[in-house]
Amino acid sequence: MDVYISGVGMTKFGRSKEPLDKMMAEAASSALKEAQLEKVEAIYLGVMNVEEFVGDSNFATLLADTLGLTGVPSTRVETASSTGAGAFEAALYAVASGHMKHVLVLAGEKMTHLPTAKTTRILSEVIDRSERRYGATMPALAAMIAQKYAREFNLSPLKLEDILAQVAIKNHSNGSFNPYAQFRKIITKEDYLKSQMVAFPLRLYDCAPITDGASAIVLTSQPTPIKVSGIGHATDTAALRHRASLTSFNSTKEAAQKAYIMAQLNPSDIQFAEVHDAFTLFEIMGTEDLGLFSPGEGWKALEEGITLLRGRLPINPSGGLKARGHPVGASGLAQLVEIVYQLRGDAGRERQIERAEIGLAHSIGGLGNNNLVTILERSDRNRILKVGTTRSREGWSPDYHPEIRVSKKVTTPPPTEGVGILETFTTLYATPEGFRSPLTLGFVKTDTGEMVMACNPDYRFPNELKIGKKVYLKMRERLYVFEKFTLWSRLIRWIKGLSE
Amino acid sequence: MDVYISGVGMTKFGRSKEPLDKMMAEAASSALKEAQLEKVEAIYLGVMNVEEFVGDSNFATLLADTLGLTGVPSTRVETASSTGAGAFEAALYAVASGHMKHVLVLAGEKMTHLPTAKTTRILSEVIDRSERRYGATMPALAAMIAQKYAREFNLSPLKLEDILAQVAIKNHSNGSFNPYAQFRKIITKEDYLKSQMVAFPLRLYDCAPITDGASAIVLTSQPTPIKVSGIGHATDTAALRHRASLTSFNSTKEAAQKAYIMAQLNPSDIQFAEVHDAFTLFEIMGTEDLGLFSPGEGWKALEEGITLLRGRLPINPSGGLKARGHPVGASGLAQLVEIVYQLRGDAGRERQIERAEIGLAHSIGGLGNNNLVTILERSDRNRILKVGTTRSREGWSPDYHPEIRVSKKVTTPPPTEGVGILETFTTLYATPEGFRSPLTLGFVKTDTGEMVMACNPDYRFPNELKIGKKVYLKMRERLYVFEKFTLWSRLIRWIKGLSE
Repeated sequence: MDVYISGVGMTKFGRSKEPLDKMMAEAASSALKEAQLEKVEAIYLGVMNVEEFVGDSNFATLLADTLGLTGVPSTRVETASSTGAGAFEAALYAVASGHMKHVLVLAGEKMTHLPTAKTTRILSEVIDRSERRYGATMPALAAMIAQKYAREFNLSPLKLEDILAQVAIKNHSNGSFNPYAQFRKIITKEDYLKSQMVAFPLRLYDCAPITDGASAIVLTSQPTPIKVSGIGHATDTAALRHRASLTSFNSTKEAAQKAYIMAQLNPSDIQFAEVHDAFTLFEIMGTEDLGLFSPGEGWKALEEGITLLRGRLPINPSGGLKARGHPVGASGLAQLVEIVYQLRGDAGRERQIERAEIGLAHSIGGLGNNNLVTILERSDRNRILKVGTTRSREGWSPDYHPEIRVSKKVTTPPPTEGVGILETFTTLYATPEGFRSPLTLGFVKTDTGEMVMACNPDYRFPNELKIGKKVYLKMRERLYVFEKFTLWSRLIRWIKGLSE
Repeated sequence: MDVYISGVGMTKFGRSKEPLDKMMAEAASSALKEAQLEKVEAIYLGVMNVEEFVGDSNFATLLADTLGLTGVPSTRVETASSTGAGAFEAALYAVASGHMKHVLVLAGEKMTHLPTAKTTRILSEVIDRSERRYGATMPALAAMIAQKYAREFNLSPLKLEDILAQVAIKNHSNGSFNPYAQFRKIITKEDYLKSQMVAFPLRLYDCAPITDGASAIVLTSQPTPIKVSGIGHATDTAALRHRASLTSFNSTKEAAQKAYIMAQLNPSDIQFAEVHDAFTLFEIMGTEDLGLFSPGEGWKALEEGITLLRGRLPINPSGGLKARGHPVGASGLAQLVEIVYQLRGDAGRERQIERAEIGLAHSIGGLGNNNLVTILERSDRNRILKVGTTRSREGWSPDYHPEIRVSKKVTTPPPTEGVGILETFTTLYATPEGFRSPLTLGFVKTDTGEMVMACNPDYRFPNELKIGKKVYLKMRERLYVFEKFTLWSRLIRWIKGLSE
């Protein structure tokens, strides 16, 4: 059964004095008003970590109550930072099954009331336990991905900096036109360069902010101008060191492929997209993983202006997570609200994309480990059949053939000491509680081909380190420590070899 | 699209040394083996509060990883203590929508590793915030419901005690035959009476224990011997004082009605049921709310032996939450696993119900505020049409017409002082941190018809209090305190009246 959208709503994102349930009620109320409904058959509620951020539990019931919908079935859904999209997916199936006619999807998070250190700690809990032990934060892992991306696609440090700045500048510019955005001021390259280094090479302006906000969508089985065409969902291992690749997210590629198949659309059909830019580089990687650009070409599209609001394929017309803000549970649904605004022509003169008929939203859960891709479409659009394609679901396949490589869990423990190759690294300046700043973290590939996380409290200057260089790995307090591979360490190794 | 069950599994419930993800993997592995599947299209995961019980987040991804199903979409679902049933519902719609063929539902909780006081605090977070401020715990609220039930249906304190004991004795007896149960020892009335008073009139043996455990079910669109016939879900206000009734759960009644309508079955078709007995009285109330017995008659059926394992309508053949144990997130799904065992004839000689063809599971979220009812059926059963009923979904309605009364939220604040009627009360002995024990709590109906929670630290002896008696309400430290309505308080009131 086809599923349509009959109403959307959201609060202004930013710092709010309202309690979370009231913010969510505000978003819900707008969506229900647009849908001309006073009641729904079910509520699907996305909040990532209401237990720790707000100290509440039994939140699905609390929300039904707050909305004045006491009695209505209410289910909380969570998929880490893609929670809003996860709730949308669950609600979609409830309607598609024919069991429900009208369902409210509601997502939100309240984060700004806590000290930043506490918020960072809560957000870090999504990271693999053993990587967290090293002091790895979300920006630290994203920074290591950015370094690896630059290396893989031959971007100099200055070039990488320039590209990342361009993402931030573009998204702040888009956000300046969005009345719901947390940041409505444009930024310059100078502003970007002045912003504080969080985890080399990522600055504060590379990271989505801490935000309060809520978003809502009403799904219905009755035809409306906006149709849900496709959805795809995939996971990947939480441990970054077990990933098949550090420069693309397999979970995005699989989710995208599923969404294209369900929608019977190709990447080339997508006219604009909301791409999960929790970190600036993720927007570029996202556009590649979605098949919108080839691997390693996302930054070129950005440079050529293709992804600008007035470009051929606008990315993050809303301002993205970067400028609209990132209340973790709400973002995945807020992206879909923006797609609806654009498809209906309701985005306002400055932000409106011309002739918007198909839009895509891409939401990342955790560090790229629980991702969803959703495609919305105007239901009055004339689908033009391409030569050689058929309209039957069976046998149709999209022009999108990514290399899907699911990581395999390592079962043999890596050696406790030895030579390895530095795969990527970062120097983290905003360290979590209990860790000295700055803190250098890296991934090292051992002799036996396994990847381990390692730290080096002594190397404070990233320019002494290089991806691809040999390092010497040791265990200290049950953590891997890596050092420069010197003549000295070579000698020790040789002596050890003799004694074996 | 019809949905079937192709495999089930569960761990032994009780105290486990295994981490939660490993326990869940054990249950999943049994279910997948039964279903003869190595992979599924999605995982729906029920954990109530993994954040606080275990300190984990991003659990849906972690589980996919632990199961060796990295890549598979994984969604966490939560509806308080009915979470296992909530995850089952979400998964059911995913299959019913035609988007998925094989889906794994997995539910679990790990609780025994924490000190009891901390577990009690986490469990108490599901209670309405202002009722929690008085020191109300789940047993305290359940005790007040038990007192009210006894009053409404004219049960003397001794009679109530006897009935509650009978539920505990029956469920422990059933549990003794269940290899998955936490408690496999039978108990006597003497054991029951010796058990510690938790919240008058509820003893330790009236309360489900703290448990570790996991359960799993594979849903499929391909016909198997076990079919999902119906499901219903409803909420109610978390605040007990705003409920339309204290002796029945509207959320159970609404959920049951929806399940009967979907299954096109009547309460009289149900051959056995797993009923959420987090507290002994809830089993009796549950059988009434489900329409299996008339209001106020549930205890009679128990006395007559109807609900015994060899009775006409066995209730909780597994031992229920009371004896099988209650790992909060897992229980709702474990009930369904038991129904499947019974329908397949796999429950073992001692526990197996004869000719089991239709079973019902009833799961309560919070204090009766997010409830689900699910009906499973043997798909080879010959449905016999009753005279006057039709098989078309349109127009068919079950022989079940409960009075559905959704509570209305009170908007006018109740008075800060005045006379009221004591609606129900308890004396709580196992008080939460920061509260003196014993602690007397009650619900008082004010002059203006509103219900408020109130405490009385002075009345320690429940026999001095009576439901239906006048009390005098005061505010002390922003909490209502109630006192006996004496000549003295009457005089103060009269003087106040004069001065107005």
